[in-house]
Parts: sequence; structure tokens; C-alpha cells
Amino acid sequence: MEKTKQRIIDAAIILFNTKGYDGTSVRELAKKANVNVGHISYYFNNKAGLQEHLLTSFFDQYISILEKVYKKMSTYNARECLLECVERTMQFHRENRQLARYVYRELTFDTTLVREIMSTYLTKEKYYFKAILEKGHKTKEFYVPSVLMAVMQLKSMISTPFLQTQYLSEVWHIMPYETSAVDQYEKVIVQWLEQSVFVEKEQLEKIAL
Amino acid sequence: MEKTKQRIIDAAIILFNTKGYDGTSVRELAKKANVNVGHISYYFNNKAGLQEHLLTSFFDQYISILEKVYKKMSTYNARECLLECVERTMQFHRENRQLARYVYRELTFDTTLVREIMSTYLTKEKYYFKAILEKGHKTKEFYVPSVLMAVMQLKSMISTPFLQTQYLSEVWHIMPYETSAVDQYEKVIVQWLEQSVFVEKEQLEKIAL
Repeated sequence: MEKTKQRIIDAAIILFNTKGYDGTSVRELAKKANVNVGHISYYFNNKAGLQEHLLTSFFDQYISILEKVYKKMSTYNARECLLECVERTMQFHRENRQLARYVYRELTFDTTLVREIMSTYLTKEKYYFKAILEKGHKTKEFYVPSVLMAVMQLKSMISTPFLQTQYLSEVWHIMPYETSAVDQYEKVIVQWLEQSVFVEKEQLEKIAL
Repeated sequence: MEKTKQRIIDAAIILFNTKGYDGTSVRELAKKANVNVGHISYYFNNKAGLQEHLLTSFFDQYISILEKVYKKMSTYNARECLLECVERTMQFHRENRQLARYVYRELTFDTTLVREIMSTYLTKEKYYFKAILEKGHKTKEFYVPSVLMAVMQLKSMISTPFLQTQYLSEVWHIMPYETSAVDQYEKVIVQWLEQSVFVEKEQLEKIAL
């Protein structure tokens, strides 16, 4: 029975990504998943319920990763926590790359579902990132003049290879979902952290002189 | 007559942004623009033609801005050119913020139109950014270990306030399209350039010690 549910989910991710949510009918979903329309109603009520499931299951997993790292803050330093966030969330995105692409695109629409996702999951995400960044700033492990900008840059670097797949392959001839490319990309994120976040204020002032 | 065309364009931007391209019918477009369906056919052939017009007119203007800055490279230094790119493109995005939001979302779909946009406009964008970054690297005005990453970060910082409007307002309570917020955001981009791009290699090596 769970296999039927998973087949519907897999079909939805593919169709929503290629034809868009509005461009996909329940009939097409059923055909692609090789199930009856009744199965979709049974598991997800309707197309909107299926969409909600995709978004919430993605963020349930994503937030639980951040939460686990956040809980380590008493024993690990902020720098280690931030690096672990990057490593674990990149791995999660890579394992769910088609879903990630759909989720990030959907988040740019102004809908009730998106507002709910924002006020539950993304407010938590902000809380965890903020706590880690502020701790590092306080312990002088690194210098974060604007938490907002640091979070925005971190988030955009993590989501870019998934949301911009098309751009990266057409313009830069990179397949960002290939394991080697993601590994390399992860190194670039860490490099960015080393160069512009993991820098003490005194060192930046020296540069400014 | 041109007013009718502009009314159709304005209606399309609003409807495509709220209901999505697939979720919008030609009938709705005509109603919103207060024109006949025949007017849409006359100016744009069909809904796909209207979409193509939105994307190509956005990128025609955007690329011509980059081209103008690029042509100044012989008289201005790379640093000035890069700062001017940021200033001018941010202003262009601010003046066309609803269109920018639609365009950037649409670019995440894998369609023939998107591939054409990539291979014409975004290949040019890459060329201009690359030329400026490589010049600055060569003249040691700044240090760019990876042109790809520098371009990706720059592009994502420029597009973020428009693509992530919803996120910024719901989670951070910022209205990124307000003039003061965009001005402030532009300062943050410049700060990022100062801290992690406009840094000579020798200085970075000093930090690493």
C-alpha cells in the first residue's frame, strides 16, 4: 500500500516540475503513477493535498536536520555547528534534488500554503541559523555584521544548485546534481564561510587599513 | 494603440505572478486588461507569445545595461565596472520588480523558451561578468578564485529581494521593494564585494596565517 503512495509522490514531483502544478491534472498524475484516481483521493484527498504533502514532508525533514545540529550547540562550537548544517542540508538536498527544485520554486508564489510554510518552518529555520550565527559572533569565532544577509547568502548558496539546475547546465555546462559537482560545490560554500564569515573583526579592520 | 499593448503586458505580469502561467487563461487576461481577446492575438499571437515577449523584453534591457558597463572597461577599472553593474541592474530590477519576480521563477522551468533565453541572453551575461571579474583578477584589484561562484553569488544577491519577496516579508518582516530597503540592500552587496571579492590574495593569505 505504501508503495502506491510513494508512486503517486514520485509522479507528482516529476509532473509538477515539468508541467507545473496548474498544468498537471489528477488524471495525468494517476496515469503517470499507474494508479486509479481513487488512490490519489484516498491518500491525499486532492491535488492540493498532494502538493501540501510534498512541501511539508520536505520541510519536516529539513527542519529536523537543523534542530539536531542546533541541539549540539552546548557541546560544539558555532563554527562546527555551521559547517555541519551545510554538510547535512546539502546531503539532504542532493538526496531529494527533484523535490527540492519543486519546493523552492513553489515558495516564490504568494499562496496560503506558502504563507503557512513560512510562518512555521522557515521561522524555525531563521531561529536556528540566527542562534548559531549569533553565538559565533559573541564567542568571536566569526564576524557577522548582518544576520539577515548571512542567512540569505547561506540559504541561496544551498538552494542554488537545485533551483538553478537549468542555468548551470545550459550556461556553465555543469550538472550540479552529479556527486562530484555537489562535493566540489560544498567545498566552495565552506571556502566562502572561511573567507567572509569565519573572519574576526580585527582581521577585517586590518584589511580595511 | 501602444496603451492597449501595455495594459495587456501589465495584466499578464499580475496574473502570471498570482495564478501562474498555466493557471491563467487568455479570457482572464483580456478581462483584467480590459481589452478584447482579439487584441491579445493581434499584439502577441497567443499566450505563449505574450510570455515570450515578457521574458525577452526583460533580458533585452538587462543585457543592454551590462553591455554599456562592459564597454567602459577600457577607461574604468574593473572595480568601478563591477560596482556600476550592481547599481544599474539593481535599479532596473527595482523599476521592474513584478516582472523580475515572474522572469526569475519562469527560468527554473525546463522549457524550450527558457533554453533559448539561456543560450542567448544568459550566455552574454556570463561573458560580461566573466570579463570584468577576470580583468580585476589580472590587475590584482581583487581576488576571484572561482569566476563561477562569484557570478552565482552576485546573481543570487541581485535577484533575491525580488524572487524571495514573500520570504523576506513573512519571515523577516522586510518589504524588499521599498526604496529604503533596496538602497540598504545595495549597500550590503557592496559590503560583500568589499569583504570577499575586493580583497587581494596577499591579504587573504595573511588572514589564513
